[in-house]
Amino acid sequence: VSYQLFYWPDIPGRGEFVRLALEEAGVSYRDVARDPDAMAEIEAKLEEESIAHPPFAPPFLIAGNKIIGQTATILLFLGDEHNLAPKAVAGRLWTQQLQLTIADLVAEVHDTHHPISLDRYYEDQKREALLRSESFRKQRIPKFFGWFETVLKRNPKGPTYLVGASISYADLSLFHVVGGLRYAFPTATKRALHNTPHLVGHVDAVAKRPRIKAYLASERRQAFNEDDIFRHYPELDG
Amino acid sequence: VSYQLFYWPDIPGRGEFVRLALEEAGVSYRDVARDPDAMAEIEAKLEEESIAHPPFAPPFLIAGNKIIGQTATILLFLGDEHNLAPKAVAGRLWTQQLQLTIADLVAEVHDTHHPISLDRYYEDQKREALLRSESFRKQRIPKFFGWFETVLKRNPKGPTYLVGASISYADLSLFHVVGGLRYAFPTATKRALHNTPHLVGHVDAVAKRPRIKAYLASERRQAFNEDDIFRHYPELDG
Repeated sequence: VSYQLFYWPDIPGRGEFVRLALEEAGVSYRDVARDPDAMAEIEAKLEEESIAHPPFAPPFLIAGNKIIGQTATILLFLGDEHNLAPKAVAGRLWTQQLQLTIADLVAEVHDTHHPISLDRYYEDQKREALLRSESFRKQRIPKFFGWFETVLKRNPKGPTYLVGASISYADLSLFHVVGGLRYAFPTATKRALHNTPHLVGHVDAVAKRPRIKAYLASERRQAFNEDDIFRHYPELDG
Repeated sequence: VSYQLFYWPDIPGRGEFVRLALEEAGVSYRDVARDPDAMAEIEAKLEEESIAHPPFAPPFLIAGNKIIGQTATILLFLGDEHNLAPKAVAGRLWTQQLQLTIADLVAEVHDTHHPISLDRYYEDQKREALLRSESFRKQRIPKFFGWFETVLKRNPKGPTYLVGASISYADLSLFHVVGGLRYAFPTATKRALHNTPHLVGHVDAVAKRPRIKAYLASERRQAFNEDDIFRHYPELDG
């Protein structure tokens, strides 16, 4: 199998959740973001009138004659294809439910620095970003982390992974979100992680998986930065 | 089959996307929101320590020994169980992809009146809400509606439904979102729908389906109101 991942260049972004699944699966893929003409190629694909299932926005994945958009839907597909989710209905749905809760958290992270509009610079909504980030740090990070801690604690197969005894795409996504929050809100994240030892252990376990470890050390992995979802603006942390 | 839907009382909310699927499927369900002790029952279920797959928040559905959270995951399940999505992989993923794009739109609607924090009243974030709504009305409604229009236009089976020639859970959700936007932002929504005739036809077709029509006329259907996701604050429209 060979895939093409379409996502904006120069940021990990939501494309990273897909990359981590592809890397853990050990499959070959073309990362369009690394092509010098990436922007033009993505725009052209979004405009292509012959596509019956047009994606709304990147990321989207081309897999044979399929084109699949929405991060969690791409992962639903990859989970089935590459054993990154249970086959049984209940576990399969649970993995997707976890993923959508992670997606809700990611959307809230994005809104910390863009509470008013995607079309305005951070500097033009900084006052609002300060207010939104305060509530995000104080209420939302602890609430989400507390829930993940509970999920790990209640896993009948032990707290290493979110679902059963094997890695799933939701584990990879949670790993990335915690990494992103450590980058963007180091003080608030450290404080919250103090109360969630299983979550700390979970993230460490994912980082040590051979394919993930190799990926993180490779040039395929992009660094967090201030054009991304997870932005380190010190004034928003605390 | 008998289901129990857990969702907050007194608002259609995200529970409504699940209700519409249950109604179209013609299955019996208990709507916990209509119970006088709904709040206590929901809180108790969220706290229940024996649940291995605890939901993060309502809505969640109890189906036999399963408990399923996240609106789109509940619909993924109901789609398979009640023929509200294609059985083939490509169509099944496409339906979920549409649903997640609808979910993104719903989250943006919510943020128009709560751009800063869930924990503060609208009145305390009204200035920010005015700014956020302007960008939502001018950029986001036309962008989402334009995409749904394109999806309907490109459906090889014709523009009546989003996926193939039959109704899916995504059609029911889109129907509700357009209804909610007509309620909350009547002027901006009317303007945007002027350019999307297939979307107007789609919403009309869903409203005329016998089970949906009967549901909308019943006491089971709740009215839109200003505690809901879709709120009519005239100052935010225009």
